[in-house]
Amino acid sequence: MPEAYTLSVSNAAELVRSGQLAPTDYANALLDRIDAHEADLQAWVTIDREAVISDARQREQESSQGVMAGVPVGLKDIFYTAGMKTTACSRIYADFVPEYDATCVTRLKEAGAIILGKAVTTEFATSDPSPSRNPWNREHTPGGSSSGSSVAVASGMCPAALGSQTGGSTCRPAAYNGIVGLKPTYGRISRYGVVPVSWSLDTVGILVRTVTDAAILLQAMAGYDANDPGSAEEPVPNFLDEMGRNGGPPRLGLLKTGYFFDRSTPEVRQHTEVAADQLAQTGAVVEELDLPDSFAIAPDVQRIIMNVECAAFHEKFFRHRADEYGPRLRASIEMGLLIPGVTYLQAQRLRREFRRDLTALAERVDALVMPATPAPAPRDLNTTGDAAFQAPWTSAGLPTIVIPSGLSESGLPLGIQFAASPFAEGRLLGAARWCEQALGLDMRPPSYS
Amino acid sequence: MPEAYTLSVSNAAELVRSGQLAPTDYANALLDRIDAHEADLQAWVTIDREAVISDARQREQESSQGVMAGVPVGLKDIFYTAGMKTTACSRIYADFVPEYDATCVTRLKEAGAIILGKAVTTEFATSDPSPSRNPWNREHTPGGSSSGSSVAVASGMCPAALGSQTGGSTCRPAAYNGIVGLKPTYGRISRYGVVPVSWSLDTVGILVRTVTDAAILLQAMAGYDANDPGSAEEPVPNFLDEMGRNGGPPRLGLLKTGYFFDRSTPEVRQHTEVAADQLAQTGAVVEELDLPDSFAIAPDVQRIIMNVECAAFHEKFFRHRADEYGPRLRASIEMGLLIPGVTYLQAQRLRREFRRDLTALAERVDALVMPATPAPAPRDLNTTGDAAFQAPWTSAGLPTIVIPSGLSESGLPLGIQFAASPFAEGRLLGAARWCEQALGLDMRPPSYS
Repeated sequence: MPEAYTLSVSNAAELVRSGQLAPTDYANALLDRIDAHEADLQAWVTIDREAVISDARQREQESSQGVMAGVPVGLKDIFYTAGMKTTACSRIYADFVPEYDATCVTRLKEAGAIILGKAVTTEFATSDPSPSRNPWNREHTPGGSSSGSSVAVASGMCPAALGSQTGGSTCRPAAYNGIVGLKPTYGRISRYGVVPVSWSLDTVGILVRTVTDAAILLQAMAGYDANDPGSAEEPVPNFLDEMGRNGGPPRLGLLKTGYFFDRSTPEVRQHTEVAADQLAQTGAVVEELDLPDSFAIAPDVQRIIMNVECAAFHEKFFRHRADEYGPRLRASIEMGLLIPGVTYLQAQRLRREFRRDLTALAERVDALVMPATPAPAPRDLNTTGDAAFQAPWTSAGLPTIVIPSGLSESGLPLGIQFAASPFAEGRLLGAARWCEQALGLDMRPPSYS
Repeated sequence: MPEAYTLSVSNAAELVRSGQLAPTDYANALLDRIDAHEADLQAWVTIDREAVISDARQREQESSQGVMAGVPVGLKDIFYTAGMKTTACSRIYADFVPEYDATCVTRLKEAGAIILGKAVTTEFATSDPSPSRNPWNREHTPGGSSSGSSVAVASGMCPAALGSQTGGSTCRPAAYNGIVGLKPTYGRISRYGVVPVSWSLDTVGILVRTVTDAAILLQAMAGYDANDPGSAEEPVPNFLDEMGRNGGPPRLGLLKTGYFFDRSTPEVRQHTEVAADQLAQTGAVVEELDLPDSFAIAPDVQRIIMNVECAAFHEKFFRHRADEYGPRLRASIEMGLLIPGVTYLQAQRLRREFRRDLTALAERVDALVMPATPAPAPRDLNTTGDAAFQAPWTSAGLPTIVIPSGLSESGLPLGIQFAASPFAEGRLLGAARWCEQALGLDMRPPSYS
């Protein structure tokens, strides 16, 4: 058997169910892994070892075992955990202990998962950098805001972690850390019990090492929740079945002209073209598609909505405790407090048009494909990188997934990002898995082996 | 047979279907009625007599006849009518000729209705008074914004008309004119092709002379429409069946303490108590209920949301043509342009709590009951009256209906208003119809006979 910390969710759960892997041994192996690398990588805020082992022991005694049987999962420290601090890595929530679990945490537990601990996030899941380091090169940012979750998964501390995305907070750090990041359709996973940034944008994100694992976590958490006003009543299919049905060579729409390639480094442009060629040679149908005109204004629209909604949530704290906020979030709240309601509503209106335009584009293919980030993770710990390639999709609410696609000359991960029409995660996952297999990479950071 | 202009929708459609009333005769009777009273009452903007008669002739030749077979209906002049001016009684839309019918207009036609014409509205369905006069006393306002629609129904110019309600624009003029006004649940009837005031408040309203007719028009128009972002996917029951099933003595919650009685004149307070007593003596169970604390702030919340959304819609015209707006709407838009986005979002948040509180209250009974207006129609043509008794329900999205309940000392109509929980129109209609029969009134303005 391979080292436990290298197992995927899918393999680990199977080994647990067949009795070949004891949840306590698995949990201990991950806790050891954390002991070995946490000082260097700073991925975690809170880990209650006794609770982890006690939960693992309880899993061993359970007769019915779910799709995530005995699998430890990390939670970005914005997900409510009953009786365990949920700080959002902020001074405002420093002592906050929720009385209940977030709906998605409850659902993970029902699927057999064990909560391994709370992972580092940038303050309130926005853009002031966190102390986490990129496991591929500690001088580079791991991205954000789901920094600890991405680092933990990339470095083998856990096979899966939850993140969130308001701009680019799941798929960007996934790309920077060489792992898989899935941002489902807006409304697919409940945000009840998740500290918000911006209610009409926030989406629960999944950080894992394989596309199949992304499907497993999505299955465990997806579905309507009356406690989340943004929750979608869309029926939940069997995503693994859907992924299988869509498992043949996909029809891909390459977004080469305009927005994405204009903003990419020459290296990223070339890398994306080479990857697309390789996919085409393996059997995918790759056609170039043009972006709708509404794309040009998309980043500004996303920013206006995020600033206003974020300010509306923080106003009650901010009035008396503005000096306890990081400088970037503080500036964002101050901006949000200034924006007129009419501007906010015009932004929401443009966004609806944008969503309609992008949906029409996405429906022409199985998945749209583009570089995951303009460049690999910057050598700069004072930034979390550029969310420009994620924000438009978050704004439109379309599902996206990032998979690793190779290394830059500097030895950092590069990724490609796929997008599909709303609620077409089955097709998105099918296309991404086919491409993952066609690329045939096994990318692990230096510290991983 | 009674005079055609006194027929209800229900009776008229039955007479048409059984061949006892020719749609052309019926339409001509109503056009005659308009000729006789329009100069006094000013209820209409546009009537195309040839089109009305040609449509009526076509109805006579149709084999399948709907619930509104051959019944002429008036439309507030904010409902798009393909090829016919839709002015919103504004200078901005003075020459606007839509290329398509509003979804609810299409549905009325599918049910067999004939479009009689476009009724006067206050400018853009807000609060600058229109030229329409109250048929009970021409020195009194007919209310607004659905002024022409209410006046036309009250004076026998048509058995039914469409209005709309953002604050109190359907149920208030219904009460002032002594007719029945139904404001369904927010999202129940599509607003596609309706000139908006405020997208998260606007609700299509129904003006008729009997509760049964309200159910018939609701049935004809209710249902999901992907073209309206606020449209509800809630299943549409058979409202007539539901009304029948809920046809026994209702359990009523009288809202006597606080908001409603505090704002009512002594005459209205006494009138409402007498009506409630009469209903109780006839068999209804009447209990007094207290309003939730969140009621106190409801009118301000409604006003903030309406001002901002209204300004967002008008901004594009207003920038260059502010002087073409009436003084009240102009002030409302100017206020809306000033309100910060955060204030708007806090108002929307308070409103969600308010809706939840009111829904919990409404679920305790078949219908809540209260005076329809603080006083009868004011003797003042420079106002459209007070929407205070409607705005909270519009803001919460709960369905309400007003029925006439008697006359004031000054000889003007008084009404009572019922409210029910979201999408419980069946129960609301059942309770209102039982009360309508229990009160046993036959209220007609002087000009009616």
